[in-house]
Amino acid sequence: MKPVLLIALINIFCFTTFLSAQEGSPTTLSSYVDPFIGTQGNGNTFPGATYPFGMVKLGPDCDDLSTNMGYKDTGKIRGFSHLHVSGTGGGPKYGNILVYPFSGDVKVEGYGSDRGKETAKAGYFSAELKESAILAELTSTPKTGIHRYTFNKSGHNGILIDAGSILGKQACCHEDQKLLGSEIEVLSETEIVGYNRVRGGWNIGEPFTVYFYAKFNTPASSFGTWKSGVKHPGKRMEFDSGEPVGAWLSFKGKASQMVEMRVGISFISIGKAKENFQNEAAGLSFDQAVEKARAAWDAYLSRIAITTADNTEKIKFYTALYHTLLQPADKTGENPLWKSGAPYFDDFYCIWDTYRTSHPLITLIAPEKESEIVNSLIDIYKNEGYLPDGRSGNSNGRTQGGSNADMLLAEAILKDLKGVEYGEAHDAMLKDAEVPPGGDERKEGRGGIKDYNIIGYVSTDYERAGTRTVEFAANDWAIAQAALKLGKDLDYKKYAKRAANWENLWRPVEHDGAKGFIMPRKANGTWDEDYRNREWQYYLDFAPNKIGVIPYNQTPSKYLNKGDFTVLTAGGWPDFFYESHSWEYSFYVPHDVRRLIARSGGKQAFLSRLDTFFSKKYYNIANEPGFLTPHLYTYAGQQFKSVLLLRNLLKKYYSEKPDGLPGNDDSGAMSSWYVFNKAGFFPNAGQDIYLISSPSFKQLSIALEGNKKLEILADNLSQEAIFIKSAELNGKPWNKAWFKHSDIKDGGVLRLTMSERPTDWGTEDLPPSRSDAQQK
Amino acid sequence: MKPVLLIALINIFCFTTFLSAQEGSPTTLSSYVDPFIGTQGNGNTFPGATYPFGMVKLGPDCDDLSTNMGYKDTGKIRGFSHLHVSGTGGGPKYGNILVYPFSGDVKVEGYGSDRGKETAKAGYFSAELKESAILAELTSTPKTGIHRYTFNKSGHNGILIDAGSILGKQACCHEDQKLLGSEIEVLSETEIVGYNRVRGGWNIGEPFTVYFYAKFNTPASSFGTWKSGVKHPGKRMEFDSGEPVGAWLSFKGKASQMVEMRVGISFISIGKAKENFQNEAAGLSFDQAVEKARAAWDAYLSRIAITTADNTEKIKFYTALYHTLLQPADKTGENPLWKSGAPYFDDFYCIWDTYRTSHPLITLIAPEKESEIVNSLIDIYKNEGYLPDGRSGNSNGRTQGGSNADMLLAEAILKDLKGVEYGEAHDAMLKDAEVPPGGDERKEGRGGIKDYNIIGYVSTDYERAGTRTVEFAANDWAIAQAALKLGKDLDYKKYAKRAANWENLWRPVEHDGAKGFIMPRKANGTWDEDYRNREWQYYLDFAPNKIGVIPYNQTPSKYLNKGDFTVLTAGGWPDFFYESHSWEYSFYVPHDVRRLIARSGGKQAFLSRLDTFFSKKYYNIANEPGFLTPHLYTYAGQQFKSVLLLRNLLKKYYSEKPDGLPGNDDSGAMSSWYVFNKAGFFPNAGQDIYLISSPSFKQLSIALEGNKKLEILADNLSQEAIFIKSAELNGKPWNKAWFKHSDIKDGGVLRLTMSERPTDWGTEDLPPSRSDAQQK
Repeated sequence: MKPVLLIALINIFCFTTFLSAQEGSPTTLSSYVDPFIGTQGNGNTFPGATYPFGMVKLGPDCDDLSTNMGYKDTGKIRGFSHLHVSGTGGGPKYGNILVYPFSGDVKVEGYGSDRGKETAKAGYFSAELKESAILAELTSTPKTGIHRYTFNKSGHNGILIDAGSILGKQACCHEDQKLLGSEIEVLSETEIVGYNRVRGGWNIGEPFTVYFYAKFNTPASSFGTWKSGVKHPGKRMEFDSGEPVGAWLSFKGKASQMVEMRVGISFISIGKAKENFQNEAAGLSFDQAVEKARAAWDAYLSRIAITTADNTEKIKFYTALYHTLLQPADKTGENPLWKSGAPYFDDFYCIWDTYRTSHPLITLIAPEKESEIVNSLIDIYKNEGYLPDGRSGNSNGRTQGGSNADMLLAEAILKDLKGVEYGEAHDAMLKDAEVPPGGDERKEGRGGIKDYNIIGYVSTDYERAGTRTVEFAANDWAIAQAALKLGKDLDYKKYAKRAANWENLWRPVEHDGAKGFIMPRKANGTWDEDYRNREWQYYLDFAPNKIGVIPYNQTPSKYLNKGDFTVLTAGGWPDFFYESHSWEYSFYVPHDVRRLIARSGGKQAFLSRLDTFFSKKYYNIANEPGFLTPHLYTYAGQQFKSVLLLRNLLKKYYSEKPDGLPGNDDSGAMSSWYVFNKAGFFPNAGQDIYLISSPSFKQLSIALEGNKKLEILADNLSQEAIFIKSAELNGKPWNKAWFKHSDIKDGGVLRLTMSERPTDWGTEDLPPSRSDAQQK
Repeated sequence: MKPVLLIALINIFCFTTFLSAQEGSPTTLSSYVDPFIGTQGNGNTFPGATYPFGMVKLGPDCDDLSTNMGYKDTGKIRGFSHLHVSGTGGGPKYGNILVYPFSGDVKVEGYGSDRGKETAKAGYFSAELKESAILAELTSTPKTGIHRYTFNKSGHNGILIDAGSILGKQACCHEDQKLLGSEIEVLSETEIVGYNRVRGGWNIGEPFTVYFYAKFNTPASSFGTWKSGVKHPGKRMEFDSGEPVGAWLSFKGKASQMVEMRVGISFISIGKAKENFQNEAAGLSFDQAVEKARAAWDAYLSRIAITTADNTEKIKFYTALYHTLLQPADKTGENPLWKSGAPYFDDFYCIWDTYRTSHPLITLIAPEKESEIVNSLIDIYKNEGYLPDGRSGNSNGRTQGGSNADMLLAEAILKDLKGVEYGEAHDAMLKDAEVPPGGDERKEGRGGIKDYNIIGYVSTDYERAGTRTVEFAANDWAIAQAALKLGKDLDYKKYAKRAANWENLWRPVEHDGAKGFIMPRKANGTWDEDYRNREWQYYLDFAPNKIGVIPYNQTPSKYLNKGDFTVLTAGGWPDFFYESHSWEYSFYVPHDVRRLIARSGGKQAFLSRLDTFFSKKYYNIANEPGFLTPHLYTYAGQQFKSVLLLRNLLKKYYSEKPDGLPGNDDSGAMSSWYVFNKAGFFPNAGQDIYLISSPSFKQLSIALEGNKKLEILADNLSQEAIFIKSAELNGKPWNKAWFKHSDIKDGGVLRLTMSERPTDWGTEDLPPSRSDAQQK
């Protein structure tokens, strides 16, 4: 009986939680957040202390400072630094202003400690440092890191700040971060200030400077500084000569001494860092700060309430939602590059990853925040010339495929996001679509756009021509739809036409029973029979945590196909496809699946092709280009296959364990994919429609703008009853396996009746495609 | 008799000076420098205190802070700021960290004073501030400004530092400087630190930050700060909230109080600014600093010794040499953007102006410095992707015509400049020549290069197509010659061929007796009959100080030719020609005058065309594209006409008065043109040859590398005897009106015998042209 009672209690509890969140009081949904999920394997999630969209991400940097999020479950903790990103791959970014507590003599190089117990919660992280028996506890405000160190040894205790430490100094392929310089000054017995200046990292970014103001609650009995590893006890200041510097404070030692420090961070100046400290952290105790961070998380997490008896399901769900809200970072007031009244967000890492599910999720549950994000993108375009795809450390870069910020701007228009200047959004998208970025075409904009706009596809004169062509086409449809809504009919016609450009690379080759694939084509119109990847070759074996990349000339022959380019040749930056191969990219026509079905030989051939794709493991759940593909069955009238497939994928590849994500979380992309698919519906990004699959919860409520809510009820849901028999939206029959944003944006109830067997529900009125509109 | 004696004395003095300079002891050639020359009219020269290639240029900012060099001879002095450029046009740059002394109550807005006597010398500037009866004196070290204020009123005296003040906030056409933020802190009764962060200006530059550490020799009795004009007496700190801030110190007043302050400047940090102060200025008295700056100037000025009885000639000559050495600014150790062992120079403003005469002059008299400059350019290419044409405030931009840094790099190779990695120089030039810069094609590289490389000219699809085509062709010849010297024969052939591309815009139209002009052509190969300027129209009237620019739609009809594009239509950024018209640009084929003569209809037609050009005032001495044109007679066998013309131009358009320059000095371009033409020879930039005209001095010595010297002797020189009758180089007859750099780089004596009448000297073996080489 116990389980049943528990379910009932939890149900009541959760719904109440949801309602009370609506009224603004805190809940404890954050207690389900486990920041360690995704920190092992390839998830690369950040486990430290931060706020929703927080600029400061204070967490441990471990081992050889080579991981993307700083953390590693093995090796020593090297200290706790203030800036991180979550879920990313490639060369690491950040890891600035590292703090390390010590007992005994200060070591300024090679310090670090094995660890005992680690604890991570939303807004809190702690670790026991074994050698020194110090308990390190961290929390944060949006722009301040708050540290509490409990020293358990007598003798001299101290805390050092290493302004020269950053992640990924040794990263490969020009993706290393480079320290340009650092400066530090011990202002008083309780204050240290300084900065470091860094460039590089995955996005090959321009220099940025991270300033800090550190305030200790315990006066130092002695202090010192160092430069390039040479200690200067008693010295107050190390000026910036391009070398790494640091400083330490030592405290008169006693056992069980507890020292708190608050570190204001700024991208503007030391004065601004101090101001951030004073505004956010000066008056807070450590415990108050932990509570405040928790409440900030609960305010966001409570925007979705789910009903389930399974605690593990809650942990997975709310942690996924938590991961989605880690980025982009709200740096409003911290833009050193220009002045404007617009919000300023950074760490879009990358929109190529997050436009598919993360931004649609934020648009749904926090439209006020998505509006700020979109406005910050438009402001970047206005001041720097181009929308970013990737942006971190205040620098645009890189663009893997299309100009996918277009998708966010188009959705803002299509979904009536308030407070966005639609005309400017339209202009920003057209810049992408028309003006070649030139110089470094990996940085921003659309590389190869001159080809695409003149001959209808990106030729093999340009790198990533396959990925670019299919994504530009999808981007163009987004631009077209937005233009239509804005009454710009000429633009609508122009971009709606270009949205068919993917067909210009559709070549009738056959492989594994499927006919027709996106293939390389020369500028003169002939197929490129001699195409070779130039540098990289991705492993093709599908297995979570085993996706890898190796230089082309080291690729084992089993992957190489004797060097020929085939539908299974996946690549990297200089190649035809980015991070995947033609099997995957030949499904990426999200705006015209109807036409894709036709080009694939009709419905049966298309369904068979999907079956082959998933059964032969050509599909890679860890890769964003395939995010929508499980839902394509729905477009071909077999919604139940999407349901079945997704149930298996969610179960197989996501868990509550540290290695519980199938691949790089990519700033929450993998996690937001999970949230939508667990909720039972999925956005087709850049458009205003959602596809209905099957919810995993009997009841799910989403708080919408203006105190409205969307409820999704799944009557008769069970382990077996996962198929939809019938549906009602707001009390009226709903026989389509999709709905528009306008259908639910003012709230409503989607009531589904579940069945143990597949039904015909949703197979008649199929989701819209570009070809439908073109036929009108 | 007196004059003769004086001449003799001066002769002895000067030569001795030259010799002693060779031995390293200071001379007083700097006493001939008058920094006021060029400060009125359009010269825009900087009259303040600085070092040769000095980073700090400390001088007065006047009136409404709208002039390019800060100074204006009318209106109030608003204070003394630490960074300037000299001779530039367009939107002003710099004017950072302004200091103003006051007596009585502090005013933090609208302060300023009428002035009494002003004095300017190499390394020194002073002004009497009338209202407050304060004598302001300025000097500098390379990276520190040193101020001495003598207060003559009793009552409270004070000094304010305005960190929010910059030049050109109101400049037109997106060329305004924008203050992004500022911060200031009164550290102690004798120290103020802070910074301001700025973007924009003529080169539409990225943000840069100017940090300062100011140390006073007199303790303050009170102090205060302000933000956005609101005073906060007694407050120590204003953090950066994006607004302008400042601070002041007040001193217990007494009459005849003298307060010195030293201001370390840095682009890195406040710590580095303090370090610069400590390294350069902490131990120097004001008078010692003045002496040291003077000696630094003399060390450079003494590299050329001239013999003349005319003091005014010396003033004009050494001031011109002084102007040439003001820029680029040596910022080695002050690069916030990347780390490298290379030198770092900034304020190339622009190479389009200075490649023709300034860099050839520096190469000749200070090759060790030109080598550093070239290495810094290569380092910019290596770290940012492109060589600059313009660069200021650590940002590339803009490129008016060709990629003229190529000329400097090619010359470095052709003239055997030591310490330059020639292979890297070659790579940097090829990047310009091959890779479209894209995005903002005004920033760097070659806009329109895809046209140029494929169809052989820049079509009217691109702006500045005429200027670009002719300059790309000259650049390509420079690349070709350097490649040839490096043994890169394929590159030589490729670029030597492209160097003929100017001919593709040569259209056989007739005007004023001349046939054949560079004219607009469409991408499809047809002449662009409908070409219109898009935005700007330059005045065509030739008159010094009257060259102007007006918006096209406001152009008086007398200039407009009813809107038709003609050979006299001059333009600006978006037009076919930059800053000039086809008459001028159709002479710009510096690398193939032989072919130009042929295309112009042969020698007689060409000479007649030159006569028309100069007599009809189509020539504009104030514009760089015509720098070489007076020498083109020499290529057509009438060297004497070049001599006669140049004598008249030098006399008519240069004087020792404040308005003594014919136009913007453009970082010394006008001045170095003067130096060469007074010396009697002239470089054909991007090549290794010099053209001999006629010296203005009986004797001129140039100190070359390795204690060698080049002497130019003009026997029988007089007001009338200006033509060359015969010549010897190192004792052997020299019948060519040109020589190669290799002919003189190890020193030598060029002895000319002058005549009152034109002779046949130099009319046989004419200067080399591309067409000669192509015929071999």
